[in-house]
Amino acid sequence: MKKYVYSFEEGSEKLKSLLGGKGAGLAEMTGLGIRVPPGFTLTTEACAEFYRSGKKWPAGLKEEVDKKLEELEKKMKAKLGDNENPLLVSVRSGAVVSMPGMMDTVLNLGLNDKSVLGLAKKTKNERFAYDAYRRFINMFGDVVMGVDHKYFEEVLSKAKKTKNVKFDTDLDAEDLKKICEQYKGVIKKNTGKLFPDDPKKQLQMSIDAVFDSWNNKRAIAYRRINNITGLLGTAVNVQTMVFGNMGDNSGTGVFFSRNPSTGENEFYGEYLMNAQGEDVVAGIRTPQPITQLKKVMPKIYDELIDIYKKVEKHYKDMQDMEFTIQEGRLYLLQTRNGKRTAYAAVKIATDMVKEGLISKEEAVLKVDPEQLDQLLHKQLDQVAKQKAEVIAKGLPASPGAAVGKIVFTAERAVELAGKGEKVILVRTETSPEDIQGMNAAEGILTSRGGLTSHAAVVARGMGKCCVAGCSDIIVHEDENKFIAKELTFKEGDSITLDGTEGEVIKGEVPTVDPQLKGEFKTLMGWADSFRKIKVKTNADTPHDSKVARDFGAEGIGLCRTEHMFFEGDRIIAVREMILAENAEERKRALDKIKPMQKEDFKGIFKVMSGLPVIIRLLDPPLHEFLPKEGKEIKEMAREMKVSEQKIKDTISSLHEFNPMLGFRGCRLGIKYPEINEMQARAILEAAVECRKEGIKAIPQIEVPLVGNVKEFVIAKDIIEKVGAELKLNRGKDYWIGTMIEVPRAAITADEIAPEADFMSFGTNDLTQMGCGFSRDDAGKFLKPYVEEGIYARDPFQSIDQEGVGKLMQICIEKARKAKPHIEIGICGEHGGDPESVKFCHRIGLNDVSCSPYRVPIARLAAAQADLEEKKKGKANQFFQH
Amino acid sequence: MKKYVYSFEEGSEKLKSLLGGKGAGLAEMTGLGIRVPPGFTLTTEACAEFYRSGKKWPAGLKEEVDKKLEELEKKMKAKLGDNENPLLVSVRSGAVVSMPGMMDTVLNLGLNDKSVLGLAKKTKNERFAYDAYRRFINMFGDVVMGVDHKYFEEVLSKAKKTKNVKFDTDLDAEDLKKICEQYKGVIKKNTGKLFPDDPKKQLQMSIDAVFDSWNNKRAIAYRRINNITGLLGTAVNVQTMVFGNMGDNSGTGVFFSRNPSTGENEFYGEYLMNAQGEDVVAGIRTPQPITQLKKVMPKIYDELIDIYKKVEKHYKDMQDMEFTIQEGRLYLLQTRNGKRTAYAAVKIATDMVKEGLISKEEAVLKVDPEQLDQLLHKQLDQVAKQKAEVIAKGLPASPGAAVGKIVFTAERAVELAGKGEKVILVRTETSPEDIQGMNAAEGILTSRGGLTSHAAVVARGMGKCCVAGCSDIIVHEDENKFIAKELTFKEGDSITLDGTEGEVIKGEVPTVDPQLKGEFKTLMGWADSFRKIKVKTNADTPHDSKVARDFGAEGIGLCRTEHMFFEGDRIIAVREMILAENAEERKRALDKIKPMQKEDFKGIFKVMSGLPVIIRLLDPPLHEFLPKEGKEIKEMAREMKVSEQKIKDTISSLHEFNPMLGFRGCRLGIKYPEINEMQARAILEAAVECRKEGIKAIPQIEVPLVGNVKEFVIAKDIIEKVGAELKLNRGKDYWIGTMIEVPRAAITADEIAPEADFMSFGTNDLTQMGCGFSRDDAGKFLKPYVEEGIYARDPFQSIDQEGVGKLMQICIEKARKAKPHIEIGICGEHGGDPESVKFCHRIGLNDVSCSPYRVPIARLAAAQADLEEKKKGKANQFFQH
Repeated sequence: MKKYVYSFEEGSEKLKSLLGGKGAGLAEMTGLGIRVPPGFTLTTEACAEFYRSGKKWPAGLKEEVDKKLEELEKKMKAKLGDNENPLLVSVRSGAVVSMPGMMDTVLNLGLNDKSVLGLAKKTKNERFAYDAYRRFINMFGDVVMGVDHKYFEEVLSKAKKTKNVKFDTDLDAEDLKKICEQYKGVIKKNTGKLFPDDPKKQLQMSIDAVFDSWNNKRAIAYRRINNITGLLGTAVNVQTMVFGNMGDNSGTGVFFSRNPSTGENEFYGEYLMNAQGEDVVAGIRTPQPITQLKKVMPKIYDELIDIYKKVEKHYKDMQDMEFTIQEGRLYLLQTRNGKRTAYAAVKIATDMVKEGLISKEEAVLKVDPEQLDQLLHKQLDQVAKQKAEVIAKGLPASPGAAVGKIVFTAERAVELAGKGEKVILVRTETSPEDIQGMNAAEGILTSRGGLTSHAAVVARGMGKCCVAGCSDIIVHEDENKFIAKELTFKEGDSITLDGTEGEVIKGEVPTVDPQLKGEFKTLMGWADSFRKIKVKTNADTPHDSKVARDFGAEGIGLCRTEHMFFEGDRIIAVREMILAENAEERKRALDKIKPMQKEDFKGIFKVMSGLPVIIRLLDPPLHEFLPKEGKEIKEMAREMKVSEQKIKDTISSLHEFNPMLGFRGCRLGIKYPEINEMQARAILEAAVECRKEGIKAIPQIEVPLVGNVKEFVIAKDIIEKVGAELKLNRGKDYWIGTMIEVPRAAITADEIAPEADFMSFGTNDLTQMGCGFSRDDAGKFLKPYVEEGIYARDPFQSIDQEGVGKLMQICIEKARKAKPHIEIGICGEHGGDPESVKFCHRIGLNDVSCSPYRVPIARLAAAQADLEEKKKGKANQFFQH
Repeated sequence: MKKYVYSFEEGSEKLKSLLGGKGAGLAEMTGLGIRVPPGFTLTTEACAEFYRSGKKWPAGLKEEVDKKLEELEKKMKAKLGDNENPLLVSVRSGAVVSMPGMMDTVLNLGLNDKSVLGLAKKTKNERFAYDAYRRFINMFGDVVMGVDHKYFEEVLSKAKKTKNVKFDTDLDAEDLKKICEQYKGVIKKNTGKLFPDDPKKQLQMSIDAVFDSWNNKRAIAYRRINNITGLLGTAVNVQTMVFGNMGDNSGTGVFFSRNPSTGENEFYGEYLMNAQGEDVVAGIRTPQPITQLKKVMPKIYDELIDIYKKVEKHYKDMQDMEFTIQEGRLYLLQTRNGKRTAYAAVKIATDMVKEGLISKEEAVLKVDPEQLDQLLHKQLDQVAKQKAEVIAKGLPASPGAAVGKIVFTAERAVELAGKGEKVILVRTETSPEDIQGMNAAEGILTSRGGLTSHAAVVARGMGKCCVAGCSDIIVHEDENKFIAKELTFKEGDSITLDGTEGEVIKGEVPTVDPQLKGEFKTLMGWADSFRKIKVKTNADTPHDSKVARDFGAEGIGLCRTEHMFFEGDRIIAVREMILAENAEERKRALDKIKPMQKEDFKGIFKVMSGLPVIIRLLDPPLHEFLPKEGKEIKEMAREMKVSEQKIKDTISSLHEFNPMLGFRGCRLGIKYPEINEMQARAILEAAVECRKEGIKAIPQIEVPLVGNVKEFVIAKDIIEKVGAELKLNRGKDYWIGTMIEVPRAAITADEIAPEADFMSFGTNDLTQMGCGFSRDDAGKFLKPYVEEGIYARDPFQSIDQEGVGKLMQICIEKARKAKPHIEIGICGEHGGDPESVKFCHRIGLNDVSCSPYRVPIARLAAAQADLEEKKKGKANQFFQH
């Protein structure tokens, strides 16, 4: 038979999955000899059984609770509901993962009309006893019997009014006694049921209420928002009450073993004398800094320091603790690993290594990679921000902060930025034509599009702040204005974006720069020494490449050549190529583009000297290079000296119902081999010229959207022909590989691998095609999908391991079977998501590639993946003995 | 060492893959003791090696040819190039699959200035000898040395002019001798090379030329058009010449062992006396019906009948044969299985069973399922058609014929058809809104869209004739006219469509009805007795269901409910549902649709009584139910009493970049569970009501576009709730299954199968997502793909077995592992493609479903799949002994 109840003496951190965080912490402290009010914990399994059997207690639970209660009574020499010496207990929830304030708590349980007399006698304080009783009835009525707190509040207000006093403390024992009676009336009136006198009934009902609270709306929402899945239920802690409100030698407080904002190794917290925990939270009285306690109760203060050092050392992590002092006696009520800022997390982890408290491995495992994002972007000055006027809220599409003047077109952004102005580009949505403007702007604001819209993806790639899909603003691009909160914002007006929060702020708010030195650097160094998987970057310019290399990138995993097609005047040549009516005309246009592309590649090879650079051949559908609106078409016709009709006809002939699945990727090069040839030549000639200058260029040419090995072979043959002309050896001077983004490619990887030097998962497209989700449209239906748990997380943010991940595994298995040592990487947006990076490690990828600003995140995640694997290996080993 | 050359005595039909069709036929006839001019065959492997080694003969080939030639000379008692008794040979190509006229032939090889004298002496006919020499130089110059035939023609014309005669036959030996000299001059002038005197050189060069012709443009194009893949190369036949032009006791002819048009068991063919084969083809003299030969040469005639009967019996198939009579002596030059019409194919197969020539199994294997299509549609009267004026040619999108008056809108089609008029719906392209009109029309003509456009797919589903993507016509829908060949066609003008040929004809051409009785019925009965896989149909109406059942469908594999949404007034209620702002409004609108849907289902259950009916829940994106143009929006606003803006806003909010991957399929029901509930209720209530009337309704509800088992479970729970309310038992009274069309579903079939009663591959969408091809856009790039052999066939026409097929296999394996006896079928367009049906059989599907008019095709293909498997099993068994 399962054991459902553990006394604190029986419990330990190892049983955390059964006892929850609070229960395990109390047990652990008890074990360390720290004074914790005795009690016991009902396991999460008991909760799970409760739900499994239709909200009934599993067999044996009642008996176990009764037995533990008896033991507790014996230990405390008091009895629940006793008229002389009553035992009072608290009943608290405690899940494995902290869910602050999300579930229910009952205090002072065990009081009734008789035992309250016992409490009065024992404490020699009638007022205290009835105040405790009143609080209990209120809390029990609210939490257990479902009576709205406001009805109790009404009674209390009326009593104060009648007596014409302001504070609860002005009410005496007699008043409170009356209030207790009235409270019971409130319960009867609202539920039709009597407040239960029997303390055992009280206890059973309270436990039920805590079990119930596991699935209340708040708790479900909290778990969803925080991606908490796979838990059984909540544990329930039944603990002897101690009181911080028994006079001036009583009190209560909360503290951290280190500063959670800065990470400084200092005693940090606050306390209140003669108060209960809820008084601290209620904010009626202002708590004192914990250091003040040294003056008031020096012995207790020293005791606290001893305790927190002991506990921190024990847990090897910064602790968040609660205590109560009852009549000069210190009790610890909670300890758990404390939440902290990214900055603090890094400092604490490295400090603890210096202090000899933890190993480097443990330090690397202690920092949440996702949290590092905070450290990698310009941030708003938080003090100044508090005074700022937020005019709209959109999606936090790309973190960081941006301050600048509003512009509504990419051209204007480039123009003003050229004059040294800082600008914010505001668009309904962005398109590849806006790239230059986005690059020139400090930040981007769009009124449409989701977290994976063009604006969002490109901005993240650029490490540029972006608020997307901000439907609070209405953009009138034609009138150069937008409206928000009934205010009109025109070109030149200043705004500030907070990409981390998704906020748009009126006017300018000061910013602070990211710090990438000191402890952070140290920690990343340790991470690098542990990880196996390489971290590359997705970068299209020498500038981005430089940023990424400074952040530790070990090469370029994806250089998209199409972005280069928009730079400067070359878009004209690109358009000439698209309008060309035969291969010759197309070649002439391509000949104009080639020297420019070559320079691009040389710039990138220079920055990345000695590191591999994967360059993808042209990928997007050609219509993306043509204008959309009449005015632009007119202009293009004039510039290129062709008829508007010809341009319109071309646009119309390139129109597609599902461009995602249309004429793009390697399909372009199958129909127009000239494009591949030009690009291959530009890349390989750039490499040759670089080498002459002593730069170690390592070009790896990548064929996109391959679904069939024959597509790859056709492209490969062209590249090899160019290589041969330049007297270069494939596999020595250059490499040819392919993206795996079409499901068919994954399924036939055994055919593709023998032809390719490397493979790289394009998980964005693989997700689109594998799941049948258009990234641009999925916003409409993916939200309810994640809410209903159909997908644990947005599959565009974190790899859908159960589905797309399986496709990847099939691909790897087939590819390696056909060519055991083929290098396989990933270059979708997922390459910067820690969970995805860990998944990539587990399925045996050689490298991940992500946007420059996420390189450190991926490095840390990769290291953790390795360490977690080793740990698991050890655990398994242990288990086998 | 490989054997590259076989004498006819050494060869046989078993070596066909090496000897080609012609070579194998000659060898086989030789083996049967039939008089065939002796010779030998160079294998297809020799040709493959020739290409592999850069157009060089493989080692040993020359020696083998020399040896075989020597043997031949010995046997013929003549010598190649001999001055006294020269041996003449023909050099002919002969691939494994017949490619008539696509490759090259050289006749009379072995002649030069000396051996021509020998020929003259031997035949005692100088004119004959020089005529043969002239023909040889011409042919050799053209075929082997690449000199255009016209230059030789010029010389000949000039000679006739000079002599003032009309026919070649008017030229005498001296004239021809001169012409031979001039011909050699032509070669020298055009190539700079001399005509080779050495007969061995002639032979070697001719063999090279035939090898070369395997990859000439014509041959490549022929193989592409006829889906001929996987061949090594062509074989080359070197054969002793016989002459049909040696006087009145010589002649030549071609014939079939049965009538290739009607299948009648009769001697059918034609001949010419004193002529060579090329004279028959050239059409200068009119050949005589073969039956005439009986009078002219009764012995030869009887001999021919004996021979063809012997050969037909030997091959157990109708033969297409060639013969030459040289001076009263009969030689057979070719035999092969004859091409025939579908009607003849069916008749011949069944007749041969009656005659005891072949078994029923062999008969079923003898008919090409794809060819049956000819029998299943109304056809134009071919005699009348010869006089018709074809005004435009488009794609043969759906076979059959249609005659009627032109209309330009679906409404008008419905209106006129209601009055009993026969109409042809002409549109730029069609959309789901046109369904009613398409249904009312006799045929559909569109100027845009490919073989898988909406018009094409729907028309095929309806068994309705359709010419699509006919860019020869320009449709002015707003002016109710179209223009073709500078003629204007208005509403009410009559046209005729030939959907089998893709032709548009001015005026009315008489048609003939399909015949589905007699031998055809007999053959289908045999087929049914052999096949294991079930054949169902895709049908949305009682009418289509009836057609399909009459064609032998064993249930409905896919009933699309969305087509019903367009019928009559219900589109208004559907639009109300789409415009609804909350679940309640949506429910109100759905309540209006429900009784209509219920009636639809009752109609179908009635027709399909006793057979399973798979009904798919609503699938298409909602925007398909809304109007597109301003006028229609206005009308809808008026009808529904809402603002135009509201409709426009809804349209805009439903707009998607990639609707294929957007908000559709089960995603609709996840967001709007009311829709699923309404449909489930309509289906199950219909079933209950039908059963009360004694109809055996077998409803199987299908959830579309599932990618994740949780989606399926959500939909399933709703259906089960409705089922429980109606006191129906799942698995007994109704079934719930899912489409497999998202790659992720295939990969996670082990999770889905345990929840589902059946699965059905939606191979259209699985191909779109698996290969990353938008069906609507792929026309732009798929053509070069098939031309370059990247895909053997258009993957939307025939399952991409190597890619999508692998996904299917993974799915089946996973599904059956989790639930061994789950029924798995296919309901994409591929269900009617014979190759795909056979593939479905091989991978273990339980059923295929196709459009009503393809049911017999699928039945036959399914039977063949089974028989082919058994044959292979036997062959393997044999091999193991």
